[in-house]
Amino acid sequence: MRNVIVGQSGGPTAVINSSLLGVYKTAKDRGAKIVYGMVHGIKGLLDGQVADLSERLRTELDMDLLKRTPSSFLGSCRYKLPDVLGNEELYKKIFAYLDKLEIDAFFYIGGNDSMDTIKKLTDFGAITSSPIRFIGVPKTIDNDLAITDHTPGYGSAAKYIAATTKEIIRDGLVYDYPVVSVMEIMGRNAGWLTAATALAKGEDCEGVDEIYLPEKVFDLDYFLANVGKKLKENRSMVIAVSEGIKVADGRYVCELADHVDYTDMFGHKQLAGTARFLAAKVAEKYGVKTRAIELSSLQRCASHITSRVDVTEAYNVGGAAVKAAFEGMTGQVITLKRISDDPYMCITEPADVHIIANVEKKVPLEWITRDGTYVKPELVHYIRPLIQAEITPLWVDGLPRHIRLKNPKMRD
Amino acid sequence: MRNVIVGQSGGPTAVINSSLLGVYKTAKDRGAKIVYGMVHGIKGLLDGQVADLSERLRTELDMDLLKRTPSSFLGSCRYKLPDVLGNEELYKKIFAYLDKLEIDAFFYIGGNDSMDTIKKLTDFGAITSSPIRFIGVPKTIDNDLAITDHTPGYGSAAKYIAATTKEIIRDGLVYDYPVVSVMEIMGRNAGWLTAATALAKGEDCEGVDEIYLPEKVFDLDYFLANVGKKLKENRSMVIAVSEGIKVADGRYVCELADHVDYTDMFGHKQLAGTARFLAAKVAEKYGVKTRAIELSSLQRCASHITSRVDVTEAYNVGGAAVKAAFEGMTGQVITLKRISDDPYMCITEPADVHIIANVEKKVPLEWITRDGTYVKPELVHYIRPLIQAEITPLWVDGLPRHIRLKNPKMRD
Repeated sequence: MRNVIVGQSGGPTAVINSSLLGVYKTAKDRGAKIVYGMVHGIKGLLDGQVADLSERLRTELDMDLLKRTPSSFLGSCRYKLPDVLGNEELYKKIFAYLDKLEIDAFFYIGGNDSMDTIKKLTDFGAITSSPIRFIGVPKTIDNDLAITDHTPGYGSAAKYIAATTKEIIRDGLVYDYPVVSVMEIMGRNAGWLTAATALAKGEDCEGVDEIYLPEKVFDLDYFLANVGKKLKENRSMVIAVSEGIKVADGRYVCELADHVDYTDMFGHKQLAGTARFLAAKVAEKYGVKTRAIELSSLQRCASHITSRVDVTEAYNVGGAAVKAAFEGMTGQVITLKRISDDPYMCITEPADVHIIANVEKKVPLEWITRDGTYVKPELVHYIRPLIQAEITPLWVDGLPRHIRLKNPKMRD
Repeated sequence: MRNVIVGQSGGPTAVINSSLLGVYKTAKDRGAKIVYGMVHGIKGLLDGQVADLSERLRTELDMDLLKRTPSSFLGSCRYKLPDVLGNEELYKKIFAYLDKLEIDAFFYIGGNDSMDTIKKLTDFGAITSSPIRFIGVPKTIDNDLAITDHTPGYGSAAKYIAATTKEIIRDGLVYDYPVVSVMEIMGRNAGWLTAATALAKGEDCEGVDEIYLPEKVFDLDYFLANVGKKLKENRSMVIAVSEGIKVADGRYVCELADHVDYTDMFGHKQLAGTARFLAAKVAEKYGVKTRAIELSSLQRCASHITSRVDVTEAYNVGGAAVKAAFEGMTGQVITLKRISDDPYMCITEPADVHIIANVEKKVPLEWITRDGTYVKPELVHYIRPLIQAEITPLWVDGLPRHIRLKNPKMRD
């Protein structure tokens, strides 16, 4: 094999750089001459923005820092390749550029859209009999990819959410009058992240009172009645809701407010605001103190708490992608397959990108209580192994140290 | 000395329990018979809610966990004692109850309102020639207490804010199109917490672009013009604002929105929303992608990142309070006095509660740039020693372990 290239795409996670490291080190170990990085994903590649990773990761310390640095080291993009048919010129341009760089294998670390990129490049490669191999390396905190047991990135986000939920519960139950705290967790269509709040419950923690996932229709009156019932006992509560919960007519809960903060440049109404809306409703109806807490982008970038299981798996998935390419595969996505629960064991397994791309995996309804206000023990059992063990930050002068790509606009 | 009693009041911090531990262990070491805890502060005391701390902290592990548990172990209250004159009955009731418990020293861990409680109890004690000694143990993430160099709780909050700011910056600069992220930090009148975002800047981090503190009048047009200037370079930015920034006519920035989410039961308009308002304004004016990020209550309860300097000082301040009482002092607050910058050294020193209570310490204007968009190096130099070193959580089954007070409604 001559050279390989790797890119990162979509929203960041805390371990997306561990997958990058897995690709880089495994490719080097297996004899790749140059490991290129696409700066800002496929979009950067189209502009000729690539970097030789050996020049950017010079020491063992650089690599240790890379594992502990959140967000995409190479930069990211939100760019969906158009259909192959009718856009052959674009694809020819990409392949010509890859040939110029003497690329034999192409790795793309990302979520659903990125797997679609792998699929389309594979398809064009097949049509044109290109020898280049295309392998997808999944990552997404949302855990919404099909086939794979879970996605790298999810375990660390779940660990962060569960740990902060415990802290918010301690904080929320401190007063001798009732306070209703509503936590808003990411997840527009899938409730995996919000479900992680269930991990907080234990010997040392009361746990959250209620959990609402987007997989179930949200009923505002039922919600308020539930809160009212608990308020009669005069106690504080912490409630977790997904940003994506919807009412029966299909509107997001945050759209029920009489005002919309704003609509962004892509025409998306800003979703954040579900917790604020619900907290306001509770305050209005019951006259109690409420709090709205949005965990915000820290859910995907809080690298000061990461799951060692997740970091290791992210690295392994990157390595398995290289192995698959070196063994001649193309059009594959590396999935995780849980082969044992106790002890937890997971292996990597390539899967055809055509069956994985563009399919969204939601929380099974049988893992949610019938009234939709909590999750079942099976779901906790599924998540718990993914948050085990820690990677300690490298602290320098009181803060976690990172590594960043300097002068990324290097052109070939 | 016979028995002593200790309470916690006001908003939680990550190290308020370290001060509790400092009081408990030092009092025990010095021979106090029973160390009582007020459950829910002075308000709980009025209802006869006290707990014998020896029964609640039985092992070394319990104490190690206490240091790592956020929020007030004993529960908190927001209760301001009324004036002594005209309310003698209330004070007589408190003192009678303290006498019944054979209390010789009373310690109260809290912020400005709690120091006012110490002041009033001291005054009533003086009038009635009570032998009970009253000592205040400062804590507040806001760092707004007078006389003391800084307050226990501030260092850990500053460390959390600085660490997450670094992560938000990595996350915010990842795309190849401009994204404007606005972070909202606690601090209604004092900008100490928001100023901590300046610590993010370093060799491995670009730092935040702008910092707006409540000590300076906020000018919306100037803010928007500044953002516009940087957007001309087509780059992403991260901006830190205090929740308490106000425009020239004295209104909070979040009050400029055409809607108010709601007014709480105490008639306070909900302040959270400054970042949302500013992000919406930027999106409206420049058509770029924006994000509003509220660090929320995690600023005061994120015990998974604490400063070892802060934890140690919090403990020492608790211990010094006991020492002062055992040496016969009353009406004192334990302050921190910085005696050296390099190396950083801080000692404890009792100060008369009458000069410390009800005075709010703000960020000196000479530590803020003249145009009010950033802080000066002197401020960073002041904060940096306070965030040094770490206390590692005790991880159990993937999550930080805490300790909680069970069956707190124990009555004497």
